[in-house]
Amino acid sequence: MPTTALALLNRPSAQAPEHKPGGFAFKLVDPAGQYLSVLDLGVTRGDGIFETISVGDGAPQALEPHLRRFARSAAALGMPEPDLDAWRTAILAVISELDPAPEAWVKTVMTRGIEGDSRPSGWAYASVSGDFTAARTEGIRVVTLDRGYRHDVERTSPWLLTGAKTLSYAVNRSVLREAARRNADDVIFVSSDGYVLEGPTSTVLYRRGDRLLTPGTGLGILEGTTQGSLFELAARRGMRTGFELLTPAELETADAIWLVSSVRHAAPIRELDGTPRPVDAELTTAMNDHLANRVS
Amino acid sequence: MPTTALALLNRPSAQAPEHKPGGFAFKLVDPAGQYLSVLDLGVTRGDGIFETISVGDGAPQALEPHLRRFARSAAALGMPEPDLDAWRTAILAVISELDPAPEAWVKTVMTRGIEGDSRPSGWAYASVSGDFTAARTEGIRVVTLDRGYRHDVERTSPWLLTGAKTLSYAVNRSVLREAARRNADDVIFVSSDGYVLEGPTSTVLYRRGDRLLTPGTGLGILEGTTQGSLFELAARRGMRTGFELLTPAELETADAIWLVSSVRHAAPIRELDGTPRPVDAELTTAMNDHLANRVS
Repeated sequence: MPTTALALLNRPSAQAPEHKPGGFAFKLVDPAGQYLSVLDLGVTRGDGIFETISVGDGAPQALEPHLRRFARSAAALGMPEPDLDAWRTAILAVISELDPAPEAWVKTVMTRGIEGDSRPSGWAYASVSGDFTAARTEGIRVVTLDRGYRHDVERTSPWLLTGAKTLSYAVNRSVLREAARRNADDVIFVSSDGYVLEGPTSTVLYRRGDRLLTPGTGLGILEGTTQGSLFELAARRGMRTGFELLTPAELETADAIWLVSSVRHAAPIRELDGTPRPVDAELTTAMNDHLANRVS
Repeated sequence: MPTTALALLNRPSAQAPEHKPGGFAFKLVDPAGQYLSVLDLGVTRGDGIFETISVGDGAPQALEPHLRRFARSAAALGMPEPDLDAWRTAILAVISELDPAPEAWVKTVMTRGIEGDSRPSGWAYASVSGDFTAARTEGIRVVTLDRGYRHDVERTSPWLLTGAKTLSYAVNRSVLREAARRNADDVIFVSSDGYVLEGPTSTVLYRRGDRLLTPGTGLGILEGTTQGSLFELAARRGMRTGFELLTPAELETADAIWLVSSVRHAAPIRELDGTPRPVDAELTTAMNDHLANRVS
């Protein structure tokens, strides 16, 4: 039975023509095949968008928030509007192809397609997840790195696309190499004017007493779908939640810090810029149980 | 006869294994085909590098400076070192496949390949050029836009990759859409601390009396291969050349301004942020004649 699956969408946007006539929504293909032109703007310019959706026991998690963010990213890039019905169908199809597994994920990608052609390229790729037990229980070592942008750049300079989830992620990969050079596993971006932003593929969450907080949206950072789920859990536990502009020095006074994301879920930070950090094992376990079992 | 050609490299880097055993350097293939996996990090993360090399009457121009910059970009991204002999051979091969044409270009791309596989993907794509007469003679309308980064970010935060030519160019495309909304053709980036940087795919050149100047390197901007050729021309004409940190207000007092790049060559700026600008027709013609006829 397969541990990966791939669906190519025939019409990623209802505003663009089909790739192949026939009206079919998608085609399941061998994930090891080659389906992309070297002229696709997704590769020549990193010009496209994506989402990564976790799958728990065969059910996609936070699917609708992910699809809404996918559509918002498309709008930010001036791309045709994704046909969310077609995407939803393709996502469910690749999931049903997979071996049963407690955890899996689906990545959806829509590129602007070949220059001069009006048809975006689109696919949904599913894979059984790796083992994140160590990151979730023992925690991760994190360094803060300059993101280069001011915290308010999303408002002043929307053309920098900081609020969109684009394929232009070379910097998000580069900072992980810098983290490895500093003997760390992951990164928290800091704005050029000194505010905590987000991880390269995650959201920062921290606890102060009975409050669960995050730097929030509108800082040129992505709205976290996982953070949204964890705020629901916190409210259910009687915790207060909130958004707060803060500096790295202020973050250091938190009782516990996590990087949270769709696939790795909640990874407690056990070391920040070389300094050991307390891990809240009880709340971390509750978070990861909640994330493993959510269905919407 | 074809107006495009494509070569897939079998071993883009001597430090990585071949894609297919056999020791061949590259394979000429139908440019309309599909050769890329949707798992290639070039598309999923914009994780790779490129160069665009102009071809004048069948001869690649400034080939060695382009290849050296290609290798520097690879180093900045921690990628395997490109095998420049293999790339040179593939570049010449795709050029020789093209219809004879006064102007053409070759794009070289090397991606990090499929995650977990150690082999980068590499190809050289050649195409006969479009007609840039209007941009070169009538000039272009340009707006300045915030690049988000301080001018010294390349020194303070090298992980932002500002000096490398990466595939993560979604912002470089986004700013052209913003320019179009402002009724302009192209963009000059300005640093967040107020210095002139570069165009999204070009270098800024300007004339002050008998001096031909550019904002220069080390500002988180790319070293311009075309700018290098034009400084040689300027020296031959008895002009002085130089690098200068300057503000948009200072740029406005220049006698003439150009955006120069490998394929469009020298495009005089006839309007900057909505204000008409003088065009130096004589020097522009000399520049474009020089660029059309250079061979190294």
